[in-house]
Amino acid sequence: MPVYGARMALASIGNSEFDRDTAITSRTPEATGDQGHQGSAVHDAHIHEGWTLLGAANGGYLLAITARALADTLPHSDPFTVTAHYLSVTRPGPAVIRSSTVHRRRSLSTGQASLFQTAEDGTEVERLRVLATYGDLDALSDDVRTTAKPPGIPPREHCFAAGDGEGFGAAEIVARLDMRLDPATAGWVTGGPAGRGEMRGWFDFADGRDPDPFSLLLAADALPPTTFDLGMVGWVPTVELTVHVRRRPAPGPLRVAVVTRNLAGGFLEEDAEIWDSEDRLVAQSRQLARLLNGPSGA
Amino acid sequence: MPVYGARMALASIGNSEFDRDTAITSRTPEATGDQGHQGSAVHDAHIHEGWTLLGAANGGYLLAITARALADTLPHSDPFTVTAHYLSVTRPGPAVIRSSTVHRRRSLSTGQASLFQTAEDGTEVERLRVLATYGDLDALSDDVRTTAKPPGIPPREHCFAAGDGEGFGAAEIVARLDMRLDPATAGWVTGGPAGRGEMRGWFDFADGRDPDPFSLLLAADALPPTTFDLGMVGWVPTVELTVHVRRRPAPGPLRVAVVTRNLAGGFLEEDAEIWDSEDRLVAQSRQLARLLNGPSGA
Repeated sequence: MPVYGARMALASIGNSEFDRDTAITSRTPEATGDQGHQGSAVHDAHIHEGWTLLGAANGGYLLAITARALADTLPHSDPFTVTAHYLSVTRPGPAVIRSSTVHRRRSLSTGQASLFQTAEDGTEVERLRVLATYGDLDALSDDVRTTAKPPGIPPREHCFAAGDGEGFGAAEIVARLDMRLDPATAGWVTGGPAGRGEMRGWFDFADGRDPDPFSLLLAADALPPTTFDLGMVGWVPTVELTVHVRRRPAPGPLRVAVVTRNLAGGFLEEDAEIWDSEDRLVAQSRQLARLLNGPSGA
Repeated sequence: MPVYGARMALASIGNSEFDRDTAITSRTPEATGDQGHQGSAVHDAHIHEGWTLLGAANGGYLLAITARALADTLPHSDPFTVTAHYLSVTRPGPAVIRSSTVHRRRSLSTGQASLFQTAEDGTEVERLRVLATYGDLDALSDDVRTTAKPPGIPPREHCFAAGDGEGFGAAEIVARLDMRLDPATAGWVTGGPAGRGEMRGWFDFADGRDPDPFSLLLAADALPPTTFDLGMVGWVPTVELTVHVRRRPAPGPLRVAVVTRNLAGGFLEEDAEIWDSEDRLVAQSRQLARLLNGPSGA
């Protein structure tokens, strides 16, 4: 079991910054005028500035909001596998999510959702599209047969507070999180990146809220990009992100380990494993991202 | 460079069993009566018995067909990241694919497609839904910065012909492929599975057709399930499969290495890397699958 100190648990699941800022309001069928489409729904959301980096909303935060809308639409409430394709940059402000049920089975259901914002000229612009299958995590058996081992991250007090990193530390989202990077993957802050394409750290909310399946979607895309560890600066926008939620996380901080094996032709994958405080692998994710502005001195 | 013997190249890209059996015919806008929807299209396809296992069409084969329909719809022709959610079992026979453009950018475009079959009562049943982003593989730079190494698979002549495996060898799809399993991951055939959750092998078409981006989608889902290496029998249907195509493959056989790190609660991930004859990582895939009938003697 990992060792971690007592946290300032100022918030709880359902009553936290994350819950407030990912809240959706589902319109009634009368309001949408869409009574003919069974299983489709429209939701209002607000993109909060607190989860941005250089004015652009974090992809994991947007995925969590959209996943909440799907949980409200589908007969099952837990995301099992969620894929988002990011189409255009999402800015703070109002957003509308349109969701629909694609297919229902007894233990799994599949849905689709899109998040839109209104451009200055009044046209609706799609920001991301999501395809996802939901189920009931509490219905899964406890059988575990796995070769995966938790990442070896030093205790929190020996890790590097993400807010200390120049540039990255200035992002709005960093203040909402209590993120502590493994010093072995934080060399880019002090000018000596390890060159392995790895990023590892403790992930917690600043207000002490415990993790749930929706916060795992955020955790999958919250660490600094692995390209920093490769000595490359530049924007690394996500093209596509897929998260598998494998288990409901236990209370306490998460550990996230991200690896890139292949940076080629200006694209890279980022594979993340997320572990809970009971040493269980609770989520796996992979994203395809693009490295803009090219390698620096590489 | 891997060593492999001269192949019986009876077929070429565009003129092979795989091309014939993944062909789609796009209906004209007049025929679809859907002229109002710019960027949407309808395609006819035929699911061939040669790509089935116990009467069910292989998921990678279905993904390749659907990806071809999207290539016909989108302004870009190469799949970069493709996600399929499998909704119901696809049987040999006619199918209809409905595709649409979601978003266009200069170098990437995103689309969506669904494959349907008609049930005995005449209703249309959706088999899989796909969300994908396409680009131009030939426009990517040659820069490669990677830590990934090709899998250590013995030469083909020292590998295990997949058709020799009982049960698995009886599948229709095995006859269409020239698949040679690494003996280290083929112990399940002789009764001694290694218990690591790995499956590796050479992948080639039986008619010698060279690989292309669409055949990589098939290769990502063609090896026997990793559960065999864990000593478990039973059906392992795919819930969701995502493939990243990272490079156009060179001519010659592929090597595919699949690993499962986490089998828990009746679900498992299968991560595949696909390497071409020039030792380049040409595709990465991950699927979430379900283990039915439970573990046997595990």
